[in-house]
Amino acid sequence: MTDSPGNVPRIAVDAMGGDEGLAVMLAGVARARRRAAEAQGGEIRFLLVGDEAAIRAGLSAHPNLERHSEIVHAPDVIAGDEKPSQAIRRARTTSMGVAIDCVKQGRAGAAVSSGNTGALMAMAKLSLRTMPGIDRPALAALLPTLGDNDVVMLDLGANTECDAKNLMQFAVMGAAYARTTLDLASPRVALLNIGSEDQKGTGEIRDAAGALRAATHLPMTFTGFVEGDRLSRGEHDVIVCDGFSGNIALKTAEGTARFVGDLLKRAFTSSVRSKLGFLISRPATELLRDHLDPNNHNGAVFLGLNGLVLKSHGSANELGVATAIGNAVKMVRADLARRIAEDLGNFDARAAA
Amino acid sequence: MTDSPGNVPRIAVDAMGGDEGLAVMLAGVARARRRAAEAQGGEIRFLLVGDEAAIRAGLSAHPNLERHSEIVHAPDVIAGDEKPSQAIRRARTTSMGVAIDCVKQGRAGAAVSSGNTGALMAMAKLSLRTMPGIDRPALAALLPTLGDNDVVMLDLGANTECDAKNLMQFAVMGAAYARTTLDLASPRVALLNIGSEDQKGTGEIRDAAGALRAATHLPMTFTGFVEGDRLSRGEHDVIVCDGFSGNIALKTAEGTARFVGDLLKRAFTSSVRSKLGFLISRPATELLRDHLDPNNHNGAVFLGLNGLVLKSHGSANELGVATAIGNAVKMVRADLARRIAEDLGNFDARAAA
Repeated sequence: MTDSPGNVPRIAVDAMGGDEGLAVMLAGVARARRRAAEAQGGEIRFLLVGDEAAIRAGLSAHPNLERHSEIVHAPDVIAGDEKPSQAIRRARTTSMGVAIDCVKQGRAGAAVSSGNTGALMAMAKLSLRTMPGIDRPALAALLPTLGDNDVVMLDLGANTECDAKNLMQFAVMGAAYARTTLDLASPRVALLNIGSEDQKGTGEIRDAAGALRAATHLPMTFTGFVEGDRLSRGEHDVIVCDGFSGNIALKTAEGTARFVGDLLKRAFTSSVRSKLGFLISRPATELLRDHLDPNNHNGAVFLGLNGLVLKSHGSANELGVATAIGNAVKMVRADLARRIAEDLGNFDARAAA
Repeated sequence: MTDSPGNVPRIAVDAMGGDEGLAVMLAGVARARRRAAEAQGGEIRFLLVGDEAAIRAGLSAHPNLERHSEIVHAPDVIAGDEKPSQAIRRARTTSMGVAIDCVKQGRAGAAVSSGNTGALMAMAKLSLRTMPGIDRPALAALLPTLGDNDVVMLDLGANTECDAKNLMQFAVMGAAYARTTLDLASPRVALLNIGSEDQKGTGEIRDAAGALRAATHLPMTFTGFVEGDRLSRGEHDVIVCDGFSGNIALKTAEGTARFVGDLLKRAFTSSVRSKLGFLISRPATELLRDHLDPNNHNGAVFLGLNGLVLKSHGSANELGVATAIGNAVKMVRADLARRIAEDLGNFDARAAA
């Protein structure tokens, strides 16, 4: 269902989803194409899904992109507050639904949308189906740490409530993602909790910890519970949580980074002396600003589906959209969905042996 | 049950609780005493609860503190991983239990402990009982924002799972805290959630939102759902959540602030130029560092009890302990427990009228 490596990656883009509108989506796609052409030296083909006339008009500003794209018409758009149960009935006529269908039909190696997360999850699950042994897909992203590697965190908001079995499957998928993406033989997997002692947290988390402790046949190392203040210390490779906690943690981290940045700006402009110091050290602080900009970490993937669907932040700007598409291209080139399925299959074989 | 304002505040300190040990607790208490004497110009009396011989030996390093303290002997200590159900059976012989009992007996206006949160909550609830109309106490703290005021956030970890009624009561208590502490007539109260749309989140949160929307007789303004990335924007006065989410959010914020600080340190030391800039703007960045140090925001209070019990961070250093005790003194001086009870009573009267 995905492109095989070596071929030109084809990315289906929901051109109509997200808060920022078509123009920002197209500018982001154009930027991703330029980046790929310059840095990665590779070609990408885009399937731009949505209202044909609007996309054609928007493309006039991006002649280079036009040459690498085809437009796939879809008359409707999923609203930001539309219920998933309602959205799935409109899969065939909406830009989101048609973009996912491009992956299902093998026309694209991945779909990217900045639209409604719940609707995207429901449509992708219905269309692409989950991998064998997986009940629910989970939204996963790589987050920066102080260590050498990023950390895989999931679920980031696809499943509001999760039982121990869901959490266990997220751990298995997250570990497969870390093995294939971060090139680790036995990733360190931790459960997000409110304390490190055994009796802390909900029954679901304690049960999942028991199951992970017992699963010694899996190529991962269960490192116990991790608290919110140690997510970015580089002490774990995979952090597993329900989608509610994961979303709270991810957004709180984003908000706090911005808060500290805002305070820093105030501190640096509080006196002539501090302004001068800021000007002198600006190259260093700009690197840091780039490093912390959520648009440079945009593009979470639904793990556990038979195909690649990426969620871009609803308020992603041109840079954010380009980052999400860049991630999609890397995942298509790495043949991620197939490799994770293979990796999961190996466990089952090993467990049955 | 609390000191009346004007009297010398008396604070019972669990001298044995916390990860850092007796010496750090005593140093923190001594620092709080010096601060109060210098800045607030006020006297404080301390009841130092724990092993009498050990405290007496430790006090030899703090002769000024010794003059303002009495030792209340308690032979046992609650362990960090002790189950609350087990801890409450040892209330009478442990430093934590005896410190709470000092509040119950009117010997102290507040108790402060850096020990086991679950045990502290269970013991405090059993000993002091909840206020009329409140089923469960909640751990609340004031967190810094970009706005003019701090924001009250609760629950921060006392109740792992909460129903809509608990969340509603937390909102009422949090609003009372904001009215008495932040001097606001109708605090803006929001529920922590993973989206701003009505259908987002768990059933408990949606039900609590319905109840808060309907509670127009209460002196608070319900502002709907708030996501993790907007906690510190100064757009709300009270943020209500279950103890699991609240603990994840609080600790993730702490960890991210430290992460950004560590990256900033790396950025500033990455070149001679940036080092120079850092040296020049150091006075400004040091103010920021102080502002973000969790030890300067230590000391959360259990709201909803007939008496004041404060939880200091388990790993609080001397500064952190001093901050928590300073907060306890402010709350005793403000007669917070009585004023919140009165405030809650006024609602009931108004609702019944």
